[in-house]
Amino acid sequence: MKVFEADYLRDFATEVFVACGSPREEAAIVADELVDSNLMGFDSHGVTRCIDYVDNVNAGRVVPGGEFRILSESPTTATVDCGLNFGQVSAMRMVDIAYEKATNCGIAFLVSKNCFHVGRLGSWVQKLAERGLFAFATANNRKLGHIVAPWGGREGRLGTNPLAFAAPTNKWPVVLDMTTCTIAAGKLALLIQQGKPAPPNTIQDADGNPTTDPNVMTGLKLVRDKPSGTILPFGAEFGYKGFGLSMMVEIMGGIMAGEDATVDQPGANGFALIAIDPDAFCGRAMFADLVDRLCEYQSSSAPAAGFKEVVVPGTYEFRTKEKRLAEGIPVEDATWDAIVTAVAKVGVKPA
Amino acid sequence: MKVFEADYLRDFATEVFVACGSPREEAAIVADELVDSNLMGFDSHGVTRCIDYVDNVNAGRVVPGGEFRILSESPTTATVDCGLNFGQVSAMRMVDIAYEKATNCGIAFLVSKNCFHVGRLGSWVQKLAERGLFAFATANNRKLGHIVAPWGGREGRLGTNPLAFAAPTNKWPVVLDMTTCTIAAGKLALLIQQGKPAPPNTIQDADGNPTTDPNVMTGLKLVRDKPSGTILPFGAEFGYKGFGLSMMVEIMGGIMAGEDATVDQPGANGFALIAIDPDAFCGRAMFADLVDRLCEYQSSSAPAAGFKEVVVPGTYEFRTKEKRLAEGIPVEDATWDAIVTAVAKVGVKPA
Repeated sequence: MKVFEADYLRDFATEVFVACGSPREEAAIVADELVDSNLMGFDSHGVTRCIDYVDNVNAGRVVPGGEFRILSESPTTATVDCGLNFGQVSAMRMVDIAYEKATNCGIAFLVSKNCFHVGRLGSWVQKLAERGLFAFATANNRKLGHIVAPWGGREGRLGTNPLAFAAPTNKWPVVLDMTTCTIAAGKLALLIQQGKPAPPNTIQDADGNPTTDPNVMTGLKLVRDKPSGTILPFGAEFGYKGFGLSMMVEIMGGIMAGEDATVDQPGANGFALIAIDPDAFCGRAMFADLVDRLCEYQSSSAPAAGFKEVVVPGTYEFRTKEKRLAEGIPVEDATWDAIVTAVAKVGVKPA
Repeated sequence: MKVFEADYLRDFATEVFVACGSPREEAAIVADELVDSNLMGFDSHGVTRCIDYVDNVNAGRVVPGGEFRILSESPTTATVDCGLNFGQVSAMRMVDIAYEKATNCGIAFLVSKNCFHVGRLGSWVQKLAERGLFAFATANNRKLGHIVAPWGGREGRLGTNPLAFAAPTNKWPVVLDMTTCTIAAGKLALLIQQGKPAPPNTIQDADGNPTTDPNVMTGLKLVRDKPSGTILPFGAEFGYKGFGLSMMVEIMGGIMAGEDATVDQPGANGFALIAIDPDAFCGRAMFADLVDRLCEYQSSSAPAAGFKEVVVPGTYEFRTKEKRLAEGIPVEDATWDAIVTAVAKVGVKPA
């Protein structure tokens, strides 16, 4: 296990994306988002992503510096084309546009085409909550990324389709960032790298049999040369709920932008974003105060057996960030070696 | 078991709400919604609700014919006061306002105060989808209705907090209507009436021990004279997801309207509604076509072990409606007896 300071990883990743062809300020945005994911404890969305981002640049699936265009808009809505740039660059633009429209009109809704992986979905709603808004985001996936089975099925028909909400408080925002399936694709990829099994009841093999071997997930490699295992929708015996939420993510993020889920599209994420300004309702100050009170009220519950405390969504992650800012970011040796090997393809070596 | 035609139950329930003091056209709306819930198979939200609606009228917690007022609004937003009228009457008004604002501006968001139980939440998003829009609704609950424990806790801190989405197709809309906890309060009330146990892993007693005895749920009676058992948030080992979604329902439906979750409020539901017009994005015709294709794509998956087919959200319910329109609505004898006893309090007898 290696331990790095955030600044070191941020500088390193910035050089990687500059070497990929990104303008330096865009490379810095991507690097900052990956390292922030590590800081918050989402290692599957951290600097390990340098590996597949470099591969995707080399394969032409991401276009560093790609042009961002607004295809159509109104005072409250927009459909944007992200030009296959790194998704973090596109999402940052969309957050700013959503903020402006929502503060003018109370609510805004943006959808995207040709959007590459936006990283940690919660990051974008968190940014709006840090500016006082309530936000809801979804991200679907191109057909090649359909590695989640529908409820009652055994063939991949949906992406891991995360959704995220955030609301401001007077301290940390409340941030809910969840896949609508049982386990994130990034976590499975990390488990394969680490040679570890998947948790029970999260995946099934290509014949629909339960398994904990993440290597059945050949679909993670975006190839369809043989049948792939699939991830189960979230919810155990209520898996129709996770399946239903996943379909709604596909509808909001993909179909609203005019993308046919049954046809493979370029890009990786159909990122959709709703921003709501409490000033159109109870007011930003009262809103943050009341969310604070709600959080305290939840935490005031006596704990259930096996728990020490009740924590609200986002708290673990902000605590992890404080700890890792102080103590550094741990990276498994095998992961670091894989990153170093990958970035050598674009001529970058760690300092 | 008794079996009734929908028209019979609709006429009966209309007379009940007229006797409660509703104008006839409003009584018909409430009755129609309850019977439609029965037709769709949501018996917990069907005519059995006459029992607690009559009790709530007698206790002054619902005000038949109560005035609906818009407290503040913009072209895209509104905060409304439902005057403690039957929630179905208020929700019908809010659907119409949301439709108009969304068709003008692309998106609309409405929140409510003093809103009594709106019945089946999916009904309201379904009505918007039947008119071509994409819709998302949430309903929270007053503090006395906090019978769901937070993740890791054992005290009631949230309502069952359902959320619902609907999207149009060229046949039935896709309608997802789910609580963010493991079991709906209405289903538990029905199980108590029927003397049946709750499913495993859905509730815990007041000390936080697992149980299947729904009678531990004293909090269902909206009294707090002794500690109540609680419903678990949805998600099994991922219960933090259900808990997080539930908090977001509380924030969208209650806090956005300025209601403090830690103080008991009049009303039963903080109903919140987002309506989105695809004409501001890919267009209504393309949207419905692409949702159709998505549904067919899901259903085309080979079934998993133990399943005959993959069905998309809402399909079971629309199939049930066709069957019950043809064959009638079954009502358990004990439930019917309880309804007859309850409505006698307002002087109504079944024809």
